[in-house]
Amino acid sequence: MVNVGIIGATGYAGAQLVYLLSNHSGVAITYLASHSYAGKKFSTVYPSMQGLCDLVLEEEDLQKASQRCSVLFLALPSPMASDLVSEEILNRCIVIDLGADFRLSDSLTYETWYKAKHGSKELLAKAVYGLCELNREKIQSASLIANPGCYTTCSILTLSPLVGENLIDRSTIIIDSASGVSGAGRAEKTASLFCECNESCKAYGVTTHRHTPEIEQELSRIAGETLLVQFTPHLVPMNRGILSTCYASLKKGVTEQQIEEAYRKWYGNEPFIRLMGSSLPETRFVKGTNSCAIGWVVDHRTNRVIAVGAIDNLMKGAAGQAVQNMNIRCNLGEQTGLVACVANPL
Amino acid sequence: MVNVGIIGATGYAGAQLVYLLSNHSGVAITYLASHSYAGKKFSTVYPSMQGLCDLVLEEEDLQKASQRCSVLFLALPSPMASDLVSEEILNRCIVIDLGADFRLSDSLTYETWYKAKHGSKELLAKAVYGLCELNREKIQSASLIANPGCYTTCSILTLSPLVGENLIDRSTIIIDSASGVSGAGRAEKTASLFCECNESCKAYGVTTHRHTPEIEQELSRIAGETLLVQFTPHLVPMNRGILSTCYASLKKGVTEQQIEEAYRKWYGNEPFIRLMGSSLPETRFVKGTNSCAIGWVVDHRTNRVIAVGAIDNLMKGAAGQAVQNMNIRCNLGEQTGLVACVANPL
Amino acid sequence: MVNVGIIGATGYAGAQLVYLLSNHSGVAITYLASHSYAGKKFSTVYPSMQGLCDLVLEEEDLQKASQRCSVLFLALPSPMASDLVSEEILNRCIVIDLGADFRLSDSLTYETWYKAKHGSKELLAKAVYGLCELNREKIQSASLIANPGCYTTCSILTLSPLVGENLIDRSTIIIDSASGVSGAGRAEKTASLFCECNESCKAYGVTTHRHTPEIEQELSRIAGETLLVQFTPHLVPMNRGILSTCYASLKKGVTEQQIEEAYRKWYGNEPFIRLMGSSLPETRFVKGTNSCAIGWVVDHRTNRVIAVGAIDNLMKGAAGQAVQNMNIRCNLGEQTGLVACVANPL
Amino acid sequence: MVNVGIIGATGYAGAQLVYLLSNHSGVAITYLASHSYAGKKFSTVYPSMQGLCDLVLEEEDLQKASQRCSVLFLALPSPMASDLVSEEILNRCIVIDLGADFRLSDSLTYETWYKAKHGSKELLAKAVYGLCELNREKIQSASLIANPGCYTTCSILTLSPLVGENLIDRSTIIIDSASGVSGAGRAEKTASLFCECNESCKAYGVTTHRHTPEIEQELSRIAGETLLVQFTPHLVPMNRGILSTCYASLKKGVTEQQIEEAYRKWYGNEPFIRLMGSSLPETRFVKGTNSCAIGWVVDHRTNRVIAVGAIDNLMKGAAGQAVQNMNIRCNLGEQTGLVACVANPL
Repeated sequence: MVNVGIIGATGYAGAQLVYLLSNHSGVAITYLASHSYAGKKFSTVYPSMQGLCDLVLEEEDLQKASQRCSVLFLALPSPMASDLVSEEILNRCIVIDLGADFRLSDSLTYETWYKAKHGSKELLAKAVYGLCELNREKIQSASLIANPGCYTTCSILTLSPLVGENLIDRSTIIIDSASGVSGAGRAEKTASLFCECNESCKAYGVTTHRHTPEIEQELSRIAGETLLVQFTPHLVPMNRGILSTCYASLKKGVTEQQIEEAYRKWYGNEPFIRLMGSSLPETRFVKGTNSCAIGWVVDHRTNRVIAVGAIDNLMKGAAGQAVQNMNIRCNLGEQTGLVACVANPL
Repeated sequence: MVNVGIIGATGYAGAQLVYLLSNHSGVAITYLASHSYAGKKFSTVYPSMQGLCDLVLEEEDLQKASQRCSVLFLALPSPMASDLVSEEILNRCIVIDLGADFRLSDSLTYETWYKAKHGSKELLAKAVYGLCELNREKIQSASLIANPGCYTTCSILTLSPLVGENLIDRSTIIIDSASGVSGAGRAEKTASLFCECNESCKAYGVTTHRHTPEIEQELSRIAGETLLVQFTPHLVPMNRGILSTCYASLKKGVTEQQIEEAYRKWYGNEPFIRLMGSSLPETRFVKGTNSCAIGWVVDHRTNRVIAVGAIDNLMKGAAGQAVQNMNIRCNLGEQTGLVACVANPL
Repeated sequence: MVNVGIIGATGYAGAQLVYLLSNHSGVAITYLASHSYAGKKFSTVYPSMQGLCDLVLEEEDLQKASQRCSVLFLALPSPMASDLVSEEILNRCIVIDLGADFRLSDSLTYETWYKAKHGSKELLAKAVYGLCELNREKIQSASLIANPGCYTTCSILTLSPLVGENLIDRSTIIIDSASGVSGAGRAEKTASLFCECNESCKAYGVTTHRHTPEIEQELSRIAGETLLVQFTPHLVPMNRGILSTCYASLKKGVTEQQIEEAYRKWYGNEPFIRLMGSSLPETRFVKGTNSCAIGWVVDHRTNRVIAVGAIDNLMKGAAGQAVQNMNIRCNLGEQTGLVACVANPL
Repeated sequence: MVNVGIIGATGYAGAQLVYLLSNHSGVAITYLASHSYAGKKFSTVYPSMQGLCDLVLEEEDLQKASQRCSVLFLALPSPMASDLVSEEILNRCIVIDLGADFRLSDSLTYETWYKAKHGSKELLAKAVYGLCELNREKIQSASLIANPGCYTTCSILTLSPLVGENLIDRSTIIIDSASGVSGAGRAEKTASLFCECNESCKAYGVTTHRHTPEIEQELSRIAGETLLVQFTPHLVPMNRGILSTCYASLKKGVTEQQIEEAYRKWYGNEPFIRLMGSSLPETRFVKGTNSCAIGWVVDHRTNRVIAVGAIDNLMKGAAGQAVQNMNIRCNLGEQTGLVACVANPL
């Protein structure tokens, strides 16, 4: 049994993680911390997990945590994780950070987009970007895993085969995404109130959303050259789910068959990627699962490909992928404790 | 491995059942039928289960089914199951009927409330009412299990200890329930359209809902005398969930402690019943689970008890309980393939 | 033109009031206050009213307000209004209080249920309970109008004819209500977040909700004797709407015709009451309107009547009725600026 | 008073039209037809309009209708209107068609995208495209007004100033839109069921949606040259609302000020267009109104403009604009019977 701990356990991603780890056959939760609810039972905050996890929440203390756990999950606001993690901690335990602090390898990019000072630049070189399907090998030996963002996971997985197989004009990528409200977290903000979100749809963070440089970094790596993307997130009145509709102009002569082959080549054997071809995914098809469903259509009139990806933002977009990363790193069986399918309607 | 089949696999309860059985370690699906979609792959109708269940749907044929399966689940509109099931079928396999045809032991009551002719009255004596927590012993040897209705499961479980321990005036029971829209099924009806249900709440079937006699039958059995209940269902804009708010006048001198003790006595060791005392349940606390969460409050001003129960109508209210019944009957471990908790928000 | 002012203009009820008054042909808004947003334009807080109301919000100052307005609407948390209103203010202008401070004529009852000290008990005798259909005459000359609560408006209107015509056993009244989330207001509370309300239904304030004594006070007045009611509110995932399902045992020999006649007698000519008989109301039927829709069914098995009322909690349950009260009091035409119907789906 | 009639009165757009016309001070409804509900009272189908419109629905009969009305609104599925309307009808009354049959001036384009035969090609030259803000003058004398589609209204209004002032590269236009479910109409389709739409988001009609050629036709007219657009609609779980997020590369040297000036120049005095600059619109800001709210942001990194438009699909996207067209055509005051603002949450 692997001893695991979670810091930031009462946010939505943290709670999903508690659920997954409590049901995981290979691990035992030995540390659970929450700044807001320290001293309370976890199941008092989440009555839906009464009986499953009744541990008492502790104050956030990375030192203590790292002594009790071999894998430590962080779900903290930026730049807190970068202030807390250290070489010493990493020598003692594997850290999987669900936040953004170790995702961008260039600290200047981080500080520009996050408007915050990074607290441990020296560790950035150690961090592995934990997009499992693309970085599986590096993850196997990483001590610091930067769990990708929700929009980024969905967008990168959807676009990688097109970029990697050189099928599209890399200057034309536009990613138009929609997210359920749990992506905004559990903070008490007017904008997250039921009556402010329900029965409405809006774009937000237009041109400034922090997932932009993360998508650009990973797609640039795959492309072997620097590229920019246009990324626009939207808020949609549902609990969970991300849909990314991605546009790009096709390179001259690229056929539908080549696109199909690219997706098969990259993801044909992936347990958590569901290729749907021209019958496009809906977010409900992956709700509650760790899957990313991908479909695509070629528009011969405009010579563009429209590729659509769907994930559950709290699962493949956060806690699910964190568990997948742990499974890979600790050799627990990549699919252990994760489901790939769901019975609709959920 | 137990061979199982489902007739009516593409309705919401049927599809939830396919999901549960596909993930169940002790069974193999060997027959799947749907009148509307015969000839199609199940996963074409439910793309969210691609890879999990890609069986081709067959025409509904109980003869064929009973030869291929040892447990057969029926999810059919009334009174179809009563027309199809026979002594001969029951000799060959165990039938778990998710419909209403074998729930009422009195065929006259059935025909009055369902306005339909019952097709196999001779089998009614054989049928066991499959409310697992209350009829576990009988279920263990039943060949025909009548899986309870959604409202009924929730209402009976919530009220049984109060009725059974003789704590309330049995003539004063009022059950006010709310259900998510999946309870109306997948039929193409105007009243089930998104725009007819969303942003609204209504009572329906007032004084005439068919779950009324079912609740009365079971509570009367427990009471040892005939009782009537007032049952009013409401429709609420959510996918899943049933909440039953139950009112009754307390017998003279009954204390809160007696009520607490009654619930502990009846359900203290039940894996799928979550007692919440005065911190009342919300339907999201049991979404996607096979649990029934129950809370209660005494009003000293009015001398009434208000007991509130919550279930997921497709799980404990249909497919989940059906699997629980199979587990009990086939000795597969009552909790196998079922979860009791959920990570909110889902 | 009547000069009107609103204190507490940026809550949901306040904003609805600003909307109604801005479109009202007989009034001019001359004062608008909000503690949280003082100094900002109203339409910055509510961009949906850009061009309709671009007034700058002032600090809450009843003295100033009462000098600038002849009608003053208060939408403040308890017991603030009771601390601010005075004889002097009332001499200068008519006060319509959307809060609870002047609804209960007995200050002890107020202080028991609201757990707060009432700041102006001497004014309670002056206050008129502004349920327009029942108190129209008194409202015409009132200087202090206590605008009823949302649940109370719906419940009292639904039950009054049954109580007033002596058709039911007054000790058996149970009111089971559901409300949309806007009833919880715009405060930043975890429980009001989208992801905490969406896809769920719950009872709350069971046995302790503050609208209970208000309903009892008014129904007791109508009955001519003290009665108690059992009132249970529920939260439902929708923006607006209240549905009250009311139960009572019929007096011996009472017929359906008598019930029908009672409703016709009490409400036959009311512009904002829509009698629906046995085709029960849904909350969407009155969304955005000032109407209360009422239906009823008799259960001959149990000898009970089930009467169902529906209103829009921000309209007939708050701002709409406040305008109706103003219209009556200031002789502006009772229906001016209010609609009775809506085009579904809204 | 202008006598008006509606054919197809019980669909969602038709019902919204009935509501608007019933409340309109300058018209009287003298004809109301519905194939599905002929013989029933309109308010039986829409109980929310009881008392407002209790007319009996007639069988659809254009001859009879045109004799009773001076303005006739059609809300029929394609290509029905094209089969029914004739020169003779147009001589007798003004026709405002909410369907698609007279929107595309090229019948070949119509037949390609709609896969249907156009029944009255000879009338196409007479038809005026009723996008009020852009074609006001022509509408004033039209006998056949083609009321624009919902997505098209929103997209064209959002993009026209950018195209018309030559600020963008016309080959780079991508329109990513989201719609509430009422856009799918009231037909009994599985895909429109509550449980199939709720808690999900999907793209649909990718590369093939019929509003594409309509957008291209109008933007090409404005551009003075043929252009193509990439248009992708999405379905979002809400009743009403369309959001169009429009992308285009800026022409060299174009500044934010030029963009702002373009929008002011085109729409500065429009009563139903709300310019929001960089504080982008949300669909709830225009729910229930006839307004189109527009915002825009320039991305200097990518040299693109992202312009976002929002409308209510049943109002400015259908019935509201139809009334606006009638108002212009019949000189009734363009804003009569229409609102521009709303009180959130609605």
